[in-house]
Amino acid sequence: MFRKFYRTIAASPPRILVLGFAAIIFLGAGLLMLPFSHANGEAPRFIDALFTATSATCVTGLVVVDTGTYWTMAGQIIILSMIQIGGLGFMTMATLFAIFLKRRISLKERLVLQEAFNQTSIEGIIRLVRKVVIYALTIELVGAVLFSIRFMFDMPVGEAIYKGIFHAVSFFNNAGFDIMGDYRSLVDYVGDPLVNIVTMLLIILGGLGFVVLADLVDIRNPKRKLSLHSKVVLSMTGFLIVAGAVVILLFEFSNGRTMGPLNFGEKLLAAFMQSVSPRTAGVNTVDLAGLRQATQFVIVILMFIGASPGSTGGGIKTTTFTALVGAVIAMVRGKEDVVLFKYRLAQERVYKALTVTLFAFGLVILATMILSTTEDHHFLMILFEVTSAFGTVGLTMGLTTQLTLAGKIIIILMMFIGRLGPLTLTYALGPKQGRLMYRNAEGKIIIG
Amino acid sequence: MFRKFYRTIAASPPRILVLGFAAIIFLGAGLLMLPFSHANGEAPRFIDALFTATSATCVTGLVVVDTGTYWTMAGQIIILSMIQIGGLGFMTMATLFAIFLKRRISLKERLVLQEAFNQTSIEGIIRLVRKVVIYALTIELVGAVLFSIRFMFDMPVGEAIYKGIFHAVSFFNNAGFDIMGDYRSLVDYVGDPLVNIVTMLLIILGGLGFVVLADLVDIRNPKRKLSLHSKVVLSMTGFLIVAGAVVILLFEFSNGRTMGPLNFGEKLLAAFMQSVSPRTAGVNTVDLAGLRQATQFVIVILMFIGASPGSTGGGIKTTTFTALVGAVIAMVRGKEDVVLFKYRLAQERVYKALTVTLFAFGLVILATMILSTTEDHHFLMILFEVTSAFGTVGLTMGLTTQLTLAGKIIIILMMFIGRLGPLTLTYALGPKQGRLMYRNAEGKIIIG
Ligand SMILES: [K+]
Ligand SMILES: [K+]
Repeated sequence: MFRKFYRTIAASPPRILVLGFAAIIFLGAGLLMLPFSHANGEAPRFIDALFTATSATCVTGLVVVDTGTYWTMAGQIIILSMIQIGGLGFMTMATLFAIFLKRRISLKERLVLQEAFNQTSIEGIIRLVRKVVIYALTIELVGAVLFSIRFMFDMPVGEAIYKGIFHAVSFFNNAGFDIMGDYRSLVDYVGDPLVNIVTMLLIILGGLGFVVLADLVDIRNPKRKLSLHSKVVLSMTGFLIVAGAVVILLFEFSNGRTMGPLNFGEKLLAAFMQSVSPRTAGVNTVDLAGLRQATQFVIVILMFIGASPGSTGGGIKTTTFTALVGAVIAMVRGKEDVVLFKYRLAQERVYKALTVTLFAFGLVILATMILSTTEDHHFLMILFEVTSAFGTVGLTMGLTTQLTLAGKIIIILMMFIGRLGPLTLTYALGPKQGRLMYRNAEGKIIIG
Repeated sequence: MFRKFYRTIAASPPRILVLGFAAIIFLGAGLLMLPFSHANGEAPRFIDALFTATSATCVTGLVVVDTGTYWTMAGQIIILSMIQIGGLGFMTMATLFAIFLKRRISLKERLVLQEAFNQTSIEGIIRLVRKVVIYALTIELVGAVLFSIRFMFDMPVGEAIYKGIFHAVSFFNNAGFDIMGDYRSLVDYVGDPLVNIVTMLLIILGGLGFVVLADLVDIRNPKRKLSLHSKVVLSMTGFLIVAGAVVILLFEFSNGRTMGPLNFGEKLLAAFMQSVSPRTAGVNTVDLAGLRQATQFVIVILMFIGASPGSTGGGIKTTTFTALVGAVIAMVRGKEDVVLFKYRLAQERVYKALTVTLFAFGLVILATMILSTTEDHHFLMILFEVTSAFGTVGLTMGLTTQLTLAGKIIIILMMFIGRLGPLTLTYALGPKQGRLMYRNAEGKIIIG
């Protein structure tokens, strides 16, 4: 049975991924329509159930109804299941894809993954999937325990444990769903060190990607060094978090609507949380609509860059961004190669980074333009919403609940394409077997 | 003397260009401060004179005071001189740069320009400069005559001729300055076919770049075909104009604040004018602040793309945009080469396109972020203004006259960098002599 499964996804993995996600979404939407899912009398409109199911399965976190009050516990568990399946499923598939991609190239190119898992046989894949699940559940369990203990100070034990589990799973999967009620996210805990630090760790660990997690665990082995991929992911992640936090702290320091009333320690926590979360968790501890425009724009950029490949997060990915920055630096210095940690990057990778970015950029522009005609709101609010959906972030300046029907459909599509597009595109863009027999003559145009 | 001049600019052309432009700007600003330049009693503040001089020399067209009423005829002629020197000077220098760049590469690569001018000796350069001036003055003269005849119906003959000359020079140089008064630009002529068509032709001819103009004139020779560069410029220019006009027509058809009250013919004219002008002339016939957000955003994109290399226009350039689009298409199709009109583009060119674009994009983002903190206006209004300054377009949603001092300084810098940056950057990015002796080992990261 596993052999058949292996052959099927090896034959056309992107199709399996897209169809699988669509099936889970429609199944989830159907379940959410049933009476036991929603707290008030009448059933939700199908578009709202579909929106919620897409948002959960694509671990986005944009919601048209408040998760904590609109859905019953049964509904919330259905949502949490979609988050877990969507998050882990994507993480596993993306990791498998990376292995398949390697296999399609050449023996020489079997690097990071092969080393980490030794073989890509069926046994190797079963071992990989098991490892992904164990890693994820372990991290979620630790987070859930810490959250539950903290929440016990504010609510009954049963409720604290339930909320602890829900938020640990949601945050590790970068899903951004919360059941605090009233679309509050973690605003009530803006100054709470434990909640903030646990949340940020869950988000960051979920966003590093399985390959990097496995690499980090393996590092105890004195003979192994971090792979180039892990070094790039870790350093770019660190840089973006710190740079984002510094900029947000500066811009919002005296903003009365957000961080102004907080003491310095709370300001620091809030700045780091608002810097970590856009990539691409979707949790917020301050009112995003109250941020200065400059800060909102910084968050848009962070949302666009997103997390790392093969993780629970979205966006164009840290490695893609690093490749682009590297290409610009190399050109400005007049060098031919993009060099990261003393290794040069194949031009084909830099090209791929360019393609993924332009694809993402074009899509965000197109959707923003369409929503500008269907929604009667400020441009930045719309750009924010579209980028949030594409990057499967889940942050909003308040547009989600006011979306028109057309707007909801566009955002649903953006969440779906944003989650699956870049990966399937990258896969489809894998180098083909064999080379061109015929090549056109070179022509010249003047650039710039 | 010419021999010395030749050797000097050949030694460090970008420095000459940057210093020359800065000198013209400060000289012009000084002249504008003098009593005979301004119509009302007191002298302008230096920052406003500097802003105007930068805008004129960089052929941008953003103005903090109304050109038609604030300045005397003497002041207007100073401005027009800066436009002519800035526009033609840049056009000539950019064309020369392209020749120098070719020479630095190899004999084989002497293509388009060498063919057009036969040699790059001193005599060749004098001939080139003469040819640029003749082309420009001829086109401006025809435009001026047509404008003057049309304006004679509305005003005294002397005024009509003066305004005809001013606007022909301003529009061919893609400068966007007008002396209609009250910041009106061509709004009064929204439905006038002659004014609109002449204006659009001036803008388009100025924006094609000298190489393409020379190539077009040469086409009468039956033995010569259009160069690849010219084909790319002409087809992308045509595509952007038509696509932009269609989108603007659709979005604004029933907008009461812009094209709603016009009849169909006038609507067509207005749609084409508002599509042609953002690349990068800066003339408008409808109220830009009244456009729908989606249309304003389309204009931002057109402004960012801009005109063609070695022209009077700005932006990242049509060829750069074509290279990017070509790269994405090639990747999606799984091809290795970017093929345009059956010629493949060197990877080095595609890289250059990527670099120029990312540089431009980073700069626009940075300036938008800074202005978001210094100006108290909507994000799109700020993004529009910054892109307009960077692309030396000159369109505004009304922010220019309300800029703070800090805002004015940023916009001045953006106009200057936007005009000279991409060219000097491209020049600096020219392939270096010799190759690397040492190359790093190839490393792998996962993209997307
Ligand atoms: K999310
Ligand atoms: K202009």
